Amino acid sequence: MGTIEEIKDLINRIEPLDEDAMELARQRQDQLTKPRSSLGMLEDISIKVAGIKKDPLPKIDNKVIVTMAADHGVTGEGVSAYPKEVTPQMVYNFISGGAAINILSRHVGARVVVVDMGVSIDLQGHPELISKKIDYGTKNMAKGPAMTYDDAIKSIKAGIEVFEAEFKRGIDIVGTGDMGIGNTTPSSAIVAAITGENVKKVTGRGTGIDDLGLKKKVKIIETALKVNKPNPDDPIEVLSKVGGFEIGGLAGVILAGAKNRVPVVIDGFISGAAALIATELAPSAKDYIIASHKSVEIGHKIMLEHMGLKPILDLNLRLGEGTGAALAMDIVEAGVKILCEMATFSEAGVSEELE
Amino acid sequence: MGTIEEIKDLINRIEPLDEDAMELARQRQDQLTKPRSSLGMLEDISIKVAGIKKDPLPKIDNKVIVTMAADHGVTGEGVSAYPKEVTPQMVYNFISGGAAINILSRHVGARVVVVDMGVSIDLQGHPELISKKIDYGTKNMAKGPAMTYDDAIKSIKAGIEVFEAEFKRGIDIVGTGDMGIGNTTPSSAIVAAITGENVKKVTGRGTGIDDLGLKKKVKIIETALKVNKPNPDDPIEVLSKVGGFEIGGLAGVILAGAKNRVPVVIDGFISGAAALIATELAPSAKDYIIASHKSVEIGHKIMLEHMGLKPILDLNLRLGEGTGAALAMDIVEAGVKILCEMATFSEAGVSEELE
Repeated sequence: MGTIEEIKDLINRIEPLDEDAMELARQRQDQLTKPRSSLGMLEDISIKVAGIKKDPLPKIDNKVIVTMAADHGVTGEGVSAYPKEVTPQMVYNFISGGAAINILSRHVGARVVVVDMGVSIDLQGHPELISKKIDYGTKNMAKGPAMTYDDAIKSIKAGIEVFEAEFKRGIDIVGTGDMGIGNTTPSSAIVAAITGENVKKVTGRGTGIDDLGLKKKVKIIETALKVNKPNPDDPIEVLSKVGGFEIGGLAGVILAGAKNRVPVVIDGFISGAAALIATELAPSAKDYIIASHKSVEIGHKIMLEHMGLKPILDLNLRLGEGTGAALAMDIVEAGVKILCEMATFSEAGVSEELE
Repeated sequence: MGTIEEIKDLINRIEPLDEDAMELARQRQDQLTKPRSSLGMLEDISIKVAGIKKDPLPKIDNKVIVTMAADHGVTGEGVSAYPKEVTPQMVYNFISGGAAINILSRHVGARVVVVDMGVSIDLQGHPELISKKIDYGTKNMAKGPAMTYDDAIKSIKAGIEVFEAEFKRGIDIVGTGDMGIGNTTPSSAIVAAITGENVKKVTGRGTGIDDLGLKKKVKIIETALKVNKPNPDDPIEVLSKVGGFEIGGLAGVILAGAKNRVPVVIDGFISGAAALIATELAPSAKDYIIASHKSVEIGHKIMLEHMGLKPILDLNLRLGEGTGAALAMDIVEAGVKILCEMATFSEAGVSEELE
């Protein structure tokens, strides 16, 4: 299942932000007992969320982090500091609650939805693990397309399905996260392909490769782009040739979030690659995205600038999993609570600014 | 009560960070299921907290924000966009739970301790309001000392007493906050006096004065420094001549936090001025301070650099009250939970980095 028409249909149903709700939120922020704009980004975020949710007093009760896992054929080239066995091992870690994303999601009161988008082995069934496996990892993009065009569509569609199912259980805000040994490599390839930026300028150390490893990684990405020649005007082609299944899945989550008027807090570099695919397909989705943090990966800044997004946090994070998204979601919620719960000047009997 | 000897005695009892606890925390961070250092500042903060609390697995249960309020005689010069009546009005707002600091403290699970350090009117007694009133506001520092040397000592001592009393009720981490119409003016004067920086470079718009107001504010601070000639080598003299009662009180909270091995999360510009006073008195207190955010006030960056502190957040905040401290406290807690709650590679059966 999953045709390009279904995706196009969903994209056509993404509406612009609600200006009325935003204006009411803006007016209310100016009546709250604080100097105007003195809460900076908290105020801006709250106004954006009002526009997203078409509600000047939006509620954030159900917080969800969707963490999607998949393997990458390009790891055969030795682009990562970790063996690919770590991908399924970490999925089990997510399920048993011991990974960073579990700790941070508990801390901020979000539930974690773990999805197998294409891990290279069959994972033991578990009620908390959603299987949307497209294949047992992508193919080596240095030698040909990472996946078929059809599988790229399927991965996006799978992400949409995951979101829609969770949306029925309740989502007021969604964060995106990833797990996939080697997946900074396709992410760098995607940002290079879409923005036309030099590969060197968008390729970082991922989990921690050394100088020699970084040189090799750059070369492999350059080779992959030469071999595949992805057409930057066709984001699905880019995804199929140099992407990954979790990246496609997260693009689907972002599109479905936008269509359902749910704020999508994107994590770091891999989520950024997914957001690039999503927003190249649907520029209107940009309004629904909140950039959680600025990653250590050098290509991330270029991604965010390309999408016109300003990150909330800058904590030198480079883990992925949705960790930055979880932390930033808490700031988003704080901004919304400021908007909804603070007293106004007249309610509190506080004098307003002097003329 | 409150002699300089009591303060000196407390300062002498500030110990260095515990290197053993920090080393154990560092080792544990490297065994957790994530690439080394991939959680950036979260890891650094957790190691610092381990050193502060002398515990490689520190607990953060009781979170407290101490918000101190006072008035400033210099408001007579028209340095603020708000009338000074707003100081007591906002104290009542804190007590009834409608202010930004109430919302954000609830959000992060901290209790707010509101202290009258020197509001210009008698506040109606309330069980949640602590009175440590030194005087009914400072005197106009453009015409002479803001307070006596003795009152400066008293204000620091009062802050120490507030901390010690709350410490008995339980404090694992403390945040500092302020309320006082006009208090960016003494804060700018303090940073100029202590760092020797040009007044223009450390003076901002506070609650939101215009260009003309800013020019006037700079002039008044320059006058105050000329009239009072505070000796930069005597931080108590600086506090007495161009400071404020809430600034002295917060300096006391910082010193008492350091002495009791409690991490002190300082808010923005006014808390920064208090931290300058505290760390000039006791350089060893620096290790116990965590800078919550980078304020919009231009002098804040200079303060933080002078103390060698790196802020966690940069959200364009300029409200005070402890709002930035509350938000950052949540990030500190997240870092500590990562340290204490994540699974290690061996616990989770995850392969470690390739050689």
